[in-house]
Formats: sequence, C-alpha cells, structure tokens
Amino acid sequence: MIFEHPLNESIRAYLRIEHLIRQMNRAYDDASELACLGFFRALFELQELLERGDYRQDLLKDLEKHESDLARWAEAPGVDLSALNQFRSELQRLIQNLRAAPRLGTELKEDRFLAGIRQRFTIPGGNCCFDLPQLHLWLHQSPALHKDDQAAWLNVISPLTSAVVMHLQLCRERGAFSQETAKAGFFQDSAEGLQLLRVRMSEGIHLYPTISGNRHRFTVRFHQPSEEGSIAFEDDVPFEVARC
Amino acid sequence: MIFEHPLNESIRAYLRIEHLIRQMNRAYDDASELACLGFFRALFELQELLERGDYRQDLLKDLEKHESDLARWAEAPGVDLSALNQFRSELQRLIQNLRAAPRLGTELKEDRFLAGIRQRFTIPGGNCCFDLPQLHLWLHQSPALHKDDQAAWLNVISPLTSAVVMHLQLCRERGAFSQETAKAGFFQDSAEGLQLLRVRMSEGIHLYPTISGNRHRFTVRFHQPSEEGSIAFEDDVPFEVARC
Repeated sequence: MIFEHPLNESIRAYLRIEHLIRQMNRAYDDASELACLGFFRALFELQELLERGDYRQDLLKDLEKHESDLARWAEAPGVDLSALNQFRSELQRLIQNLRAAPRLGTELKEDRFLAGIRQRFTIPGGNCCFDLPQLHLWLHQSPALHKDDQAAWLNVISPLTSAVVMHLQLCRERGAFSQETAKAGFFQDSAEGLQLLRVRMSEGIHLYPTISGNRHRFTVRFHQPSEEGSIAFEDDVPFEVARC
Repeated sequence: MIFEHPLNESIRAYLRIEHLIRQMNRAYDDASELACLGFFRALFELQELLERGDYRQDLLKDLEKHESDLARWAEAPGVDLSALNQFRSELQRLIQNLRAAPRLGTELKEDRFLAGIRQRFTIPGGNCCFDLPQLHLWLHQSPALHKDDQAAWLNVISPLTSAVVMHLQLCRERGAFSQETAKAGFFQDSAEGLQLLRVRMSEGIHLYPTISGNRHRFTVRFHQPSEEGSIAFEDDVPFEVARC
C-alpha cells in the first residue's frame, strides 16, 4: 500500500481535491442512498475548498510547466513522437479548458437545489427527511435521474478536476521507487526540489508512516496501531520511497 | 414514499439518531472505502448529538410509558397474551440495558483510534491519506476486520440505538393512515396529543411536503422542485397522513 505526503501547499490542496473527486466518482458508480449522501458531502467539501482559494492560476502554471517539459523531450533522440504529441495535445486541451472556465465553483454555488441542502449537511444528522424533504424526494428518484444530476455537477467542475488529476499523474510518474530502510523506525533524506513523497509498504507490514517535510528535508517515522492509540515502532523497517 | 415530521424536540432528536444509525448499518453491510468513510461520519455525528444532550432519562420515560400501555392492553378481552408478554419482556430488557449503560458516548470518546481521526473529519477533504495515515492503514485492512471494529462501536451505543428504534416503531404503530386532500396545496389540522406526523404520497406524484407544527396545530404545504429551487404547488393534492 502507498502513503503519499505533499511537500508544498499546492500539492496538499490537489491531493485533497483528488481525494474528494475519487469519493464522488465512486458514489456516482454506486446507486445507494448512502453513496448519494457521500456524493453530496464530498461535493460540498470540494465547494468549500474552491471558495477558500482559486487554484486556477497555480494549476495553469503547473500544467504549462509539464507542457514545456514535454516540448523539450520531443527533441531527445529515440522518443516516440506520435505518443508524445498525443499527450501534449491532451495537456493543451486541459490548459485551454481551465483557462476558459468561469471562476470554479460559482456555478455550483448558484445551483438552487444544492444551495438549499448544503447548509444542513453541517448539522449532525441534519440531512434527515424532515430537515430536507426536497432531498428526501430527490433520493427517492430513480438511479438514472441521480446519475443525470450528478454527471451535470461533475461536469461543471471537470476543468479543475481533470487538470488536478493530470498534474498529480505527471508528478507521480516523475519518481521511481527505491528501496530504503528506516533504522529503528526512522528515516530522513533531502527534499530539495521535490513536491510529493510516496512511501510504499509490503502488504504484510501492519505499520503506518508519519511523514513530515519542508523544502529541505523530510523525515519518516513508523508507527504501530495499538489499543492505546499508536506507538512508535523501533525496529528496522524496509520500505520503498518515490521522490516526485 | 413517506415524509415524517416530529412534533416535539425528543422525537426530532430520535429521528436524527435513527437516520444516523441507518447510515451506519448500511455502511456496515457495504465493504467499500466510501461506505467506511460514511460510517465514521455518521458515528461522529451521532457522538456529537450524544455529547450535546443525555437522552437517557427521556427515553426511559418514553419506554416505561409504552410498557405501562402494554400492561393495560393485557387486561383487554381477546388479546394474544403470549405475543404481548413476549413484546413486554423485550421492552423490559431494553429498559434495563438503557438504565445500566454508562453515560452514552463516553466509551466512544475514549476510543483512541476514533479520537485520533474524528477532528479531521470536520476539515474539507481532511480525511486524506496524508492527514490520517492510521485511517489509510485501517481502510486497507480486510472487510472482516472492518466489520469487527464497526460491530464493537455499534455495540457500545446499542442500549441507546435499540431503545430509539423501538420507541419510534411503537410511535409509528400508533397512527393509521387516513386519506386527505390538500386544497390548493395546503392542509391543516389539530396536533393535540400527537408526537409524529407521517405523510404518505403516491409514487407518481413529484411533490414534497413542508410540514410545520406545534402542540396545537400542524400545516402541510406541497412544493414542486424546479430549476429555480422549488415553487409552491397550488392545485389540490391527495395524500395520506398518519397522526402518531
């Protein structure tokens, strides 16, 4: 299993956005009421993130950086130019869409149905039938109608979400995993020039890493879940790390 | 489909609690990561409700009232005494369990794993892998282990949840549905002595009721979802209502 850790604020935000998009996509594939509630919750959390900050400018810069990297690679000998060019035009399409999109989240904010139910999701048990009869009616519709609405909401934010997913994919591809050992459960190394760390553990190891890092260094400490919360693990731990 | 509306504060809280319990039970039956996140969310919302108020004394009074009603019915001619007595002993068992339980929610609060992840669920996207590596590890376990933990957490609150479910069931059984018509989309009637209203609509009718009520009267207005939010429906609406 893989544990990821962001080394700057934008990657931190993008990972959160990606986490919410994944929940929405899974909920979209699942017709249950529980999944629908999960969809709304993730959508409202994403809206909140988008209202706090406009990620467009940063994302555009990130994608343009990838695009110019690709342009440079095109000049290297032995490169599969047709595959590279296909990828470049996909990237250019995402950049255009993102540039053309209205302020992200505004359309969702203006959706009357969403606006009418959003506030109640912050109250414990507040999306109960008597709080939100309109939601109760919506949930009672056919899965096909749910999917129509959900697809429309996902579509509104797709210039952002597709860009985030692409950027994270390209970041991840930058780093190959290398084998390391955390001596007495501890490991540290340089973080110079990195954006994202990925720690991979073998399936049988029931430990989790707590990672911290800044622009210069990162540290990894392994912990073992226990009845009392969790305890620092003090034996050597083999693991892999990808520096992206 | 049925729309329920509470006519006092305890029923309002019980309906919220029941709504959360249903989500937890559905999530328990579903092994997906999305469902697990839904389980934690519902559990934390329930914890918040339990921390705001101790429902035990009210619930005990409610169940004891049902118990004495049953005792009275036992004296009526032609009653199926064995069924009634079986039900009474079930009710007495619930009352005993509820009386014996420690302050509800305390044990959950002391669970280190839950305490360690709860706060992050209030941050948008805050249950991401890098925020909560211990949750990420937990989610990666087998569904059987998830169910073990979830069953233990559900068990801790079962004296409360079983009592709430039983009380609501007995309340609901008190009222039979009767046919009514909302003239020009509006209906009102006496709420004297009632705790819970249940409005039942035929499947084909795409309207929802907004219900309000106090100890003396209740009103029902029907609304139609529309692009602009929702609009009051001003034709006659056939519906059924159970006064519980």
